[in-house]
Amino acid sequence: MTHALPVGLTATSVVAASSANLGPGFDSLGLALSLYDEIVVETTETGLTVEVEGEGAGQVPLDASHLVVRAIDRGLQATGVSVAGMTVRCRNDIPHSRGLGSSAAAVVGGLAVVNGLVAQAGLTALTEQQLIQLSSEFEGHPDNASAAVLGGGVVSWTEKDGSATRYAAAPIRVHPDVRLFSAVPQQRSSTAETRVLLPDTVSHTDARFNLSRAALLVVALTERPDLLMAATEDVLHQPQRAAAMPASAEYLRVLRRCGIAAVLSGAGPAVLALSTTPELPAEALEFATANGFTVSEMVVGNGVRWTSGVAVRS
Amino acid sequence: MTHALPVGLTATSVVAASSANLGPGFDSLGLALSLYDEIVVETTETGLTVEVEGEGAGQVPLDASHLVVRAIDRGLQATGVSVAGMTVRCRNDIPHSRGLGSSAAAVVGGLAVVNGLVAQAGLTALTEQQLIQLSSEFEGHPDNASAAVLGGGVVSWTEKDGSATRYAAAPIRVHPDVRLFSAVPQQRSSTAETRVLLPDTVSHTDARFNLSRAALLVVALTERPDLLMAATEDVLHQPQRAAAMPASAEYLRVLRRCGIAAVLSGAGPAVLALSTTPELPAEALEFATANGFTVSEMVVGNGVRWTSGVAVRS
Repeated sequence: MTHALPVGLTATSVVAASSANLGPGFDSLGLALSLYDEIVVETTETGLTVEVEGEGAGQVPLDASHLVVRAIDRGLQATGVSVAGMTVRCRNDIPHSRGLGSSAAAVVGGLAVVNGLVAQAGLTALTEQQLIQLSSEFEGHPDNASAAVLGGGVVSWTEKDGSATRYAAAPIRVHPDVRLFSAVPQQRSSTAETRVLLPDTVSHTDARFNLSRAALLVVALTERPDLLMAATEDVLHQPQRAAAMPASAEYLRVLRRCGIAAVLSGAGPAVLALSTTPELPAEALEFATANGFTVSEMVVGNGVRWTSGVAVRS
Repeated sequence: MTHALPVGLTATSVVAASSANLGPGFDSLGLALSLYDEIVVETTETGLTVEVEGEGAGQVPLDASHLVVRAIDRGLQATGVSVAGMTVRCRNDIPHSRGLGSSAAAVVGGLAVVNGLVAQAGLTALTEQQLIQLSSEFEGHPDNASAAVLGGGVVSWTEKDGSATRYAAAPIRVHPDVRLFSAVPQQRSSTAETRVLLPDTVSHTDARFNLSRAALLVVALTERPDLLMAATEDVLHQPQRAAAMPASAEYLRVLRRCGIAAVLSGAGPAVLALSTTPELPAEALEFATANGFTVSEMVVGNGVRWTSGVAVRS
């Protein structure tokens, strides 16, 4: 039984960028970053209006195929409500197709904004676990999605239950000495394209290499930032992607040579540097300038928030 | 320049059993267990006498090929000392060839007892890092060895530096709600034999599976014992070993069906159960009795200790 929401309701969600993989933690580790998209939805009498401001404006479709709209539709379905029409306004700060989790943010933000609507009808909101499950289903793995839902650092995983796939994540507390710098190139990428570079099989030795580093990375992020260099080594995806994004690969080498634990952010081409010093070395900043990377200091991002009404993002 | 130790010095080391792999953490995760071997060495005028009491008595060689003696020799070399002769007495509680780290304990205990000797000559003892390095070189991976050195839980890893291999480990604090039960069968095994069952290559999917669980296991062991079931899943070595140790494989299934996070201890055939309840379920204890497993509750083991003189183990 579907509950029809009245016309004139508004709700807002604010959702963070995220960095997945973090080197060895392919498809599992994730970290929310302090760069946010905001979604405002208003129920209307009929039709669909989509407005996009900031990142993606003029590039993404302004119809029912828009990822935020698809996520809102999924959220409405999951909460058992319907709308006659709606206006969706997106104010985006997260760059698209760089490996900063803009797709996961769109999906999580779209689902979460539905919570802001259903709350006004006295209906049950989607839980964190439901948000993780539904958003991960869009992408097939829960790393960015669960970071966007929970905020902070996450270890996510996938469980097969017959034909069903269950997505889950556990939060980890990132040590306050860990400083984060994103380096975003002009070049775009897409996970779907870069994933095909990965081999079907890997050596047992390489699998052991990455699992030891993924476990160590949890220790390094939470307790032992001094171990970040060793903990961010990877042999399962970064070397394989290097040819497709040579500037990012070179930037990883430059940063790591300077002793900065740098990794591809998600499938790249953005780079995430995890450091225990307040600034990146001059050599690293010079490389960024010379090669079109925009470097920004970040902090750990918050989990997705939603509210009824039109909230102004702080 | 080698320093000749005088005749008549004695030293003692006490070293814990350990469980490696812990499911997904192949060759990396380790956990010291409260079952100890004791080594007492005395410098003599000439020759080598080896005495073994308890586990391994009558089975291990009582000459320079004895693993404890080889480790003592390595420790003497590394600290730059020599002895004219020695008597080595081993009192062993750690079962051999079951997957409880008896080899690592022998090596770590042999190295550490040298520290008890050199202290009396005013010389520099081996550091924890040296103990991990030297002991891991005996086995080629640092999981059991670093657990025996550091005690508690460890994440260990290996770094290649040209032709050199560096072994390292970081301690993790095991949550006090985690209860440990070892189940030791009569059947023996050896890591060298069971390792050949492992494939050279694995799917990228399986590599991702284990790295997510290895990262999650650090979270589960330290903060979230409620996640131990999901966190101890493995596809990289336990299924492959099942045919070689059917009773252990069946016991894993029995325990996990009861909701107990059970894993092969090292390369097996012993089983380690990690639980948050004070007792194993009746069904699990009945299986053990019917299939020749001796079940013992353990606590997390201490790191290796050494002392000058003949200490009585507490």
